[in-house]
Amino acid sequence: MDSTVLKKIISRKSTRNATTDLDRMGQAARSASRVMALADSSAKNQALTCIAAEIDAHRAEIIAANRIDMDAGEAKGLDSALLDRLLLTQARVDAMIEGLQQVAALPDPVGEVSELKYRPSGIQLGRMRVPLGVVGIIYESRPNVTVDAASLCLKSGNAAILRGGSEALNSNSAIAACIRRGLAAAGLPETAVQVIETANRAAVGALLTMDKYVDVLVPRGGRGLIERVSREARMPVIKHLDGICHVYIDDKADLEKAHQIALNAKTHRYGVCNAMETLLVAEGVAKDVLPRLAEDYRTAGVELRGCARTRVIIPGSLAATEQDWHTEYLAPVLSIRIVADMDAAMDHIASYSSGHTEAIVTEDYSRARRFLAAVDSSSVMVNASTRFADGFEYGLGAEIGISTDKIHARGPVGLEGLTSQKWVVFGDGQIRE
Amino acid sequence: MDSTVLKKIISRKSTRNATTDLDRMGQAARSASRVMALADSSAKNQALTCIAAEIDAHRAEIIAANRIDMDAGEAKGLDSALLDRLLLTQARVDAMIEGLQQVAALPDPVGEVSELKYRPSGIQLGRMRVPLGVVGIIYESRPNVTVDAASLCLKSGNAAILRGGSEALNSNSAIAACIRRGLAAAGLPETAVQVIETANRAAVGALLTMDKYVDVLVPRGGRGLIERVSREARMPVIKHLDGICHVYIDDKADLEKAHQIALNAKTHRYGVCNAMETLLVAEGVAKDVLPRLAEDYRTAGVELRGCARTRVIIPGSLAATEQDWHTEYLAPVLSIRIVADMDAAMDHIASYSSGHTEAIVTEDYSRARRFLAAVDSSSVMVNASTRFADGFEYGLGAEIGISTDKIHARGPVGLEGLTSQKWVVFGDGQIRE
Repeated sequence: MDSTVLKKIISRKSTRNATTDLDRMGQAARSASRVMALADSSAKNQALTCIAAEIDAHRAEIIAANRIDMDAGEAKGLDSALLDRLLLTQARVDAMIEGLQQVAALPDPVGEVSELKYRPSGIQLGRMRVPLGVVGIIYESRPNVTVDAASLCLKSGNAAILRGGSEALNSNSAIAACIRRGLAAAGLPETAVQVIETANRAAVGALLTMDKYVDVLVPRGGRGLIERVSREARMPVIKHLDGICHVYIDDKADLEKAHQIALNAKTHRYGVCNAMETLLVAEGVAKDVLPRLAEDYRTAGVELRGCARTRVIIPGSLAATEQDWHTEYLAPVLSIRIVADMDAAMDHIASYSSGHTEAIVTEDYSRARRFLAAVDSSSVMVNASTRFADGFEYGLGAEIGISTDKIHARGPVGLEGLTSQKWVVFGDGQIRE
Repeated sequence: MDSTVLKKIISRKSTRNATTDLDRMGQAARSASRVMALADSSAKNQALTCIAAEIDAHRAEIIAANRIDMDAGEAKGLDSALLDRLLLTQARVDAMIEGLQQVAALPDPVGEVSELKYRPSGIQLGRMRVPLGVVGIIYESRPNVTVDAASLCLKSGNAAILRGGSEALNSNSAIAACIRRGLAAAGLPETAVQVIETANRAAVGALLTMDKYVDVLVPRGGRGLIERVSREARMPVIKHLDGICHVYIDDKADLEKAHQIALNAKTHRYGVCNAMETLLVAEGVAKDVLPRLAEDYRTAGVELRGCARTRVIIPGSLAATEQDWHTEYLAPVLSIRIVADMDAAMDHIASYSSGHTEAIVTEDYSRARRFLAAVDSSSVMVNASTRFADGFEYGLGAEIGISTDKIHARGPVGLEGLTSQKWVVFGDGQIRE
């Protein structure tokens, strides 16, 4: 038998095994989800507190498991950024515990009934917030996502199936054991949070087809992962693609605010999705704002790539190409374009934005109003840094991701994004005439 | 060249042509959507009124075009139910006009800002309701859907691409011409509502891949259409699969209310998704309610299919098979099952329901509360007929469909379901520290 045939057979077999295992997990998740949907807030909060206590009590084991992953990662030659994301330190374990306590302190969204009113037929109609059911989450190297994702799903009354990166397998297994013990201690089903503890890559493919058991999928990771999930998933997906965020400095801007916002939006942190990637400047103020900004960007080590007119004002800046306007740098690089006015800025945004976050800096009332209404992104800001587009800054307490989709949840997705609203009807025997 | 090869070439060519045409329509829709998103309520309402006037003025042409479709349908041997759905009468044209006026009278959801509040950072944060962008709607024979769908998309500030059934092509073209003239008369882009006016079946496949231009797809029609759209669409789908609705008569029910509700939920109309398909009865009251119900169902001409115990109480009823519990009859047929108690009823519902609408009849406070919380369907009712699960009865004014999905819109989808909420931030120069 030649090796290609053998590989095919093994691959088919491992796909079949992965499917069987996952099918069992899916069934368990579905039945746990019915218990979780009815669990009261105190049971869910107790589980979160118990999980925190378990992680605290077993931190040595978690860090030892992480050491195995780190050693394997170093041996495999993973790059330093990836290794840094993979690493668990005492401080990072503390942050996980703190995160659990924060989620426990959040109000429980489940069961909230809103807009309750009588209809002419005599029925009383309202909308009740309920869990989605089973949430699948596929993520990459950071093991702390295991705790974050589990805690948000648990608090919102969902069951979760989590699939972390294969390079974090030992870390995630150690954390999963703490989660199971914490759930059991609070009298909730251990299968309410299940971690796929196999390096078998077929598991992801199998998970994407399990629309029978999984109500929604949340991919968290690089573009490759997100695109694969969008293409293959048979269930709805809450996804976050790119963050190509823009700041537009209007010719009616307060130039000091403009300077601070443009600087903060780029340099506060580079590797984050809500960082500005393209600065648009009205031609009327370009000469006033760009030289000082360029100086501060250079001091911060930001590489500047400008349109032809920008390069006249900022000598030594590189030429921005068409590709630059489409790029999420996630790095100390900024593209700059001088535009005629707000309409030209909005046209640029409509063409190149990923729909994440855009800001205008202006003191003009009517322009601010129009920009807010017309720009079609998940967050639209006036006179504030794009860096505010974040679950914590928005008061959601925590976020499972930032959605650049328009359906269901948009922007930072917290507990509410993991729920839906069903209609409830209270009657006294009403029938349709 | 043999005919298979020829067919392939023609098919490839017609797919390419369909794609080119649709691509042009998609671009036009995308650019019209930017205008529609900013159109004020009065312009949108004027367009609705102008479309109504155009339909009124051209009713002879519409009915003549429909006559051509009807003749072709009769010649093709379409069944009478399909022909009835296809038929436009003066009364049905009146209903279209009335529908347009009703949508014009609804409040405009676009631009509503809710939950506006200050955050500790000093930014003021809220959520603004905004159109989805471009809505694609694929539907079957009823030409009045062209007007319904267009009016809801228009009022919610979206652009729409509509694809009706090929058997209604002439009717839809005549209606589309009225819509275009109405939009133009109100100063709105004619391309805000585009009807795909070709019988080329490749158009549907091409539309499903146009995620670049179409933000959400709403299929309305039979199971085959819905399943194809769910499988192939690259964009999010708001879909309605089956309506396998249950009524559970509890042993603490008011038996007179139970009788009226169970009768109404089945016999008020048969071919509708919110009709009851399975009746569940607590064993404690089965002997009290079933004989009288059976008599009234038989008078109404409803065929009864029961579990073994039901058949003892209702002699002459047929045996319900496993398949019956899974079936949306849309016909004067009812399956009946006697269950031990509410938990058994909820287990049956969890196994067989399509997640559309379920009702309990009970006077027991705690059971009512638990049923409402635990049953995972888009509408859950106490002491009311499932027939109330409807956009008009719920006060949405009109509905584009009834969603059995859990994501985004659930149950009857009106104007709000065609919008999303983006975050808006008002600042005074705030930056992240």
